Amino acid sequence: MKQLTDIDNLAVSTIRLLSVDQVSKANSGHPGAPLGMAPAAHVVWRQMRFNPKNPTWINRDRFVLSNGHSVALLYSLLHLFGFDLTIEDLKQFRQVGSKTPGHPEYELPGVEVTTGPLGQGVSNAVGLAIAQANIAATYNKPGFELSNNFTYVFLGDGCLQEGVASEACSLAGHLQLGNLVAIYDDNRITIDGNTNVSFDEDVVKRFEAYGWEVLFVNNGDEDLQGIADALEQAKKSKDKPTLIKMTTTIGFGSLAAGSHSVHGAPLKADDVKQLKTKLGFNPDESFVVPQEVYDYYNKNTIQPGQQYEREWEELFAKYAEAYPNEAAEFKRRLEGKLPENWESKLPVYKPTDSAVASRKLSEIVIESIYNELPELIGGSADLTPSNLTRWSKAVDFQPPASGLGEFSGRYIRFGVREHGMGAIINGISAYGANFKAFGATFLNFVSYAAGAVRLAALSGHPVIWVATHDSIGLGEDGPTHQPIETLAHLRALPNMHVWRPADGNEVSAAYRVALNSKHTPSVISLSRQNLPQLEGSSIEKASKGGYVLQEVENADITIVATGSEVGICVDAAKVLANKNIKSRIVSLPDFHTFDRQSEEYRASVFPDGIPILSVEVLSTLGWSKYAHQSFGIDRFGVSGKGPEVYKFFNFTPEGIAEKAEKTITFYKGKTVESPLKKAF
Amino acid sequence: MKQLTDIDNLAVSTIRLLSVDQVSKANSGHPGAPLGMAPAAHVVWRQMRFNPKNPTWINRDRFVLSNGHSVALLYSLLHLFGFDLTIEDLKQFRQVGSKTPGHPEYELPGVEVTTGPLGQGVSNAVGLAIAQANIAATYNKPGFELSNNFTYVFLGDGCLQEGVASEACSLAGHLQLGNLVAIYDDNRITIDGNTNVSFDEDVVKRFEAYGWEVLFVNNGDEDLQGIADALEQAKKSKDKPTLIKMTTTIGFGSLAAGSHSVHGAPLKADDVKQLKTKLGFNPDESFVVPQEVYDYYNKNTIQPGQQYEREWEELFAKYAEAYPNEAAEFKRRLEGKLPENWESKLPVYKPTDSAVASRKLSEIVIESIYNELPELIGGSADLTPSNLTRWSKAVDFQPPASGLGEFSGRYIRFGVREHGMGAIINGISAYGANFKAFGATFLNFVSYAAGAVRLAALSGHPVIWVATHDSIGLGEDGPTHQPIETLAHLRALPNMHVWRPADGNEVSAAYRVALNSKHTPSVISLSRQNLPQLEGSSIEKASKGGYVLQEVENADITIVATGSEVGICVDAAKVLANKNIKSRIVSLPDFHTFDRQSEEYRASVFPDGIPILSVEVLSTLGWSKYAHQSFGIDRFGVSGKGPEVYKFFNFTPEGIAEKAEKTITFYKGKTVESPLKKAF
Repeated sequence: MKQLTDIDNLAVSTIRLLSVDQVSKANSGHPGAPLGMAPAAHVVWRQMRFNPKNPTWINRDRFVLSNGHSVALLYSLLHLFGFDLTIEDLKQFRQVGSKTPGHPEYELPGVEVTTGPLGQGVSNAVGLAIAQANIAATYNKPGFELSNNFTYVFLGDGCLQEGVASEACSLAGHLQLGNLVAIYDDNRITIDGNTNVSFDEDVVKRFEAYGWEVLFVNNGDEDLQGIADALEQAKKSKDKPTLIKMTTTIGFGSLAAGSHSVHGAPLKADDVKQLKTKLGFNPDESFVVPQEVYDYYNKNTIQPGQQYEREWEELFAKYAEAYPNEAAEFKRRLEGKLPENWESKLPVYKPTDSAVASRKLSEIVIESIYNELPELIGGSADLTPSNLTRWSKAVDFQPPASGLGEFSGRYIRFGVREHGMGAIINGISAYGANFKAFGATFLNFVSYAAGAVRLAALSGHPVIWVATHDSIGLGEDGPTHQPIETLAHLRALPNMHVWRPADGNEVSAAYRVALNSKHTPSVISLSRQNLPQLEGSSIEKASKGGYVLQEVENADITIVATGSEVGICVDAAKVLANKNIKSRIVSLPDFHTFDRQSEEYRASVFPDGIPILSVEVLSTLGWSKYAHQSFGIDRFGVSGKGPEVYKFFNFTPEGIAEKAEKTITFYKGKTVESPLKKAF
Repeated sequence: MKQLTDIDNLAVSTIRLLSVDQVSKANSGHPGAPLGMAPAAHVVWRQMRFNPKNPTWINRDRFVLSNGHSVALLYSLLHLFGFDLTIEDLKQFRQVGSKTPGHPEYELPGVEVTTGPLGQGVSNAVGLAIAQANIAATYNKPGFELSNNFTYVFLGDGCLQEGVASEACSLAGHLQLGNLVAIYDDNRITIDGNTNVSFDEDVVKRFEAYGWEVLFVNNGDEDLQGIADALEQAKKSKDKPTLIKMTTTIGFGSLAAGSHSVHGAPLKADDVKQLKTKLGFNPDESFVVPQEVYDYYNKNTIQPGQQYEREWEELFAKYAEAYPNEAAEFKRRLEGKLPENWESKLPVYKPTDSAVASRKLSEIVIESIYNELPELIGGSADLTPSNLTRWSKAVDFQPPASGLGEFSGRYIRFGVREHGMGAIINGISAYGANFKAFGATFLNFVSYAAGAVRLAALSGHPVIWVATHDSIGLGEDGPTHQPIETLAHLRALPNMHVWRPADGNEVSAAYRVALNSKHTPSVISLSRQNLPQLEGSSIEKASKGGYVLQEVENADITIVATGSEVGICVDAAKVLANKNIKSRIVSLPDFHTFDRQSEEYRASVFPDGIPILSVEVLSTLGWSKYAHQSFGIDRFGVSGKGPEVYKFFNFTPEGIAEKAEKTITFYKGKTVESPLKKAF
């Protein structure tokens, strides 16, 4: 960076005041961190490469505001750096329907990831950095450096205290992600007061322990040159991520500077006035941007950014001549399209095929498609041999110097870090390039990552959770590992596919819908134990989320089940048939997909006049949406051999048949209306 | 510890083989870690103070097996050290109904906490250590050291990778918990293989950064004296927790030693034989305990432990003479009784009292009872001024040297560490002494702690989550902070109170039931916004979990709601009344408590013949258990002023009245049966 001048200081003041004005106008928000971090924001953004008119350009530098409550700072930057955010938008800060909600939201142009829940942003940033390293290692060629962007992240003490950040940052150090620069706002204040009440660990030493480079800026409030120097140094660190510990004063310039009272409440009116006066602005004006600040950013950042993008397009055109196959693939990915006919690779099963655990069926899918889908990237939180997620020819995503893999590798060893994994795959997905990122663990431990899973659904990252050992069927590991509430939890999340496939065709369907999904994440719940291939299943039918597996005329009951229980229900139907009781069997592998089918179709699956019994070895909560009566497990599981545990809970053909008979008896003579029928 | 001899080695071999035999007999389990950690287990347990015949003696040393999959090791120890666990029990390892399930379960004598989900045990141990420090600071007097026990914890690489452990261990360092000794099984193997694939951080440096003392044992496989020396050193460290990094070989002695194949699968039969031969045992015998090993532990550990307990009882008798008040209080707590008449301190409200946010009502409860209940201890994950959990005269639980508080303080500054907080309060609760431990955060961020919340329910720790900002009503912070799926998730957990009180009396009821609960945790969801005091509410009625707030004859509809929506439904009933529509209003603050009322009572709340509409500004999932029709929010929220967001989603008296009318119309002329009526 060239020598810093008065215009830089004016720009910093402008950022500070625009942020304060947003909070004051809304009478809600967080002025403290924007005041402290405005200098770093200016220095970092000034040198970033991006085109605000094309915010999805793949090689743009990424910026993540991990301390998302400082969002007024981000909106100020987006406005000043030419993104589609006007002063009027800033005035609508935190209002219903505005483009400036209370925390950064992914769908807004220039917002790379949704942040606010602490620790997520920096962990997403690790994913963004992994994605860049993978793209570079996959597509760059001598003379064609298609990918070389950096990921910058701002974070505060709060993010550093969160376990998810610890997990992701430890992995980032292992992975030697030199393309990641984190700027730690060391302001020593959190909501409870001084950080010394709970957080006096040596952050520098911790990050060095993770394998990061740590740099320092002692006066982050004012020392623009110091920040710029540290930043240049950080970018030179090619085989380590960098943490810049930047000491600032929360609410710098405010009368309440340095106290937690300035963290999350608007400045008092006279405080705003004195601040404006101090910074050389008119105390009676708000939302003021000196033209020279616009001009400065336009000349020094926006125009060069647009030039970079043009040059990149030219480079890519030449690349396409030299490497037509790679270019075509990359282009396809940038367009967000999957390869044509990839679905034809999905395995199809006949009822005569042997029984296979659905985690194994998932492995067969991955083995069948990994080569078709270079955008498929992911791994397991240290359960690879149990989750069966690693294809036979996989190369690990590892720093080349480790000798354990390559950055072009697509299998990630996440370690025992479920929450970090969740945030990282969100980040990979957010990078673009059609990345289909997956993470794997036991279904029960998806809960460890609930914070990140929620953000996937909220943001619309179409990530995939491969969640094996999905019930009491896992057996001996017992109640600590047997999910009960997990599917109800995930099904209650808006915008979330929750698959529990019953056989090979349904596993293929789950991957089909999950990989075609553009804005909805998926959890695919898979069994440890073998499941029979079902008569009546197909990829096509299962892709509707629910379908009639076995139809019968004049049915006495509809039995609806998911996953490993569908096969048992088929056997239960035989037990019932021996007593002249006719059962329809419905398989409902994904509520979310089923709910989006036509009313007519759904009514054909759950028609009036026939009582419906649901069967699933998990919490019954939520099932009365589809069933009149539910057979499930509303207690914790037990340790024992899988089949014994099924018997213990009565999930046998005979046990289910008995419940079906009770259901039929209960509804005999009553008018039975489909639970799908609703007043609104 | 005195000089170690042959008997020590024989004991270690016995532990190793008993553990291996359990896994082999079950043909399921984890032999690797027990083989590696048997020496440390022997050395640690040999010097621990406890009485196996009275496993709840309050001043016993605590042992936590954080790598809970090594449970065979723990069962071997419990048997050898005289707990109620026979060789026959060991032979039933991992079978349905046995006393030796697949992971340690809290209800078993000698098992301090349920472990298996990685990272939890060590975090519970931080809670156990906090509890001890608090008891000691509260009740010890000169010459009367009633409390001085240590907490020992074994953990592996997996625990160290988990964020929850990072959170708890950082806090433990801050709190200078010298009574905590963690032994890290540094065996360099996890399920995915060598730890170098994902975990090559410098653990020693990290823990030093947290403020821990770190000691080393280089040959944990064999160097009993080295382990004993490190342990003695660790116990001398009075103002720092200690991590002993003990290098071992996973599966030591097995032909597969040092590989991940020995982690989670039984040894091959010939491997077991060679191991027994190598250790001087008969290769054809199983579950063998040399009598001299029983005798050795009896003489050196069990008898001294029983003697310590007797001396403690004598000390306590003298203490009771010198400090009768303290002794009476402590005795009451040990008996698990709350003080008589404590409930009379709970605030009671009249409809004419002013509207107050339920988070504020919660603060008033805490303020009213903290002095009655010395067992009440807890705090917030850095949201104290928002959660309103700190009573006015609270002393922080802080190391005395910090000058910020005392160990006798009962307000814990958890930092931004929700998951660690959850595991820590579980540990405090598990300590005994009737501790009523609470943790506070926004309801949405209880999800960050899902792993620990689940274990509270599974173990039956009656902890309390004070979960404020419980809906879209929090307003401007927007969808990243507004819970939607959260209550469905928590309600699907077995053994979990999920309160959403509607007014002051209901908040008092929630605390009343939560604090009286012996084996069920509670989440108390509280509003940011003001709520009116309702006509018809009372502590008594709300303590049933659900009740008729407003009855009316010949009702057209029952409207059931929780929390902040109950008051709006009361207003909706007025809107409906103006149209000559009669509405009953039911308040249902806790499903779990309501479900445990008599069938007759529940039927009186939700009678046949009247359609039921549920109203709650969260996911509708689960509500069809009680309601024919549900009005909720099955999408993510929006950022804006709270009342505006309510309007946006139509949760106004008029909006609710409209839904009620639609519901009435839909059910007109139909036979309406209460959803409580079920076939089984």
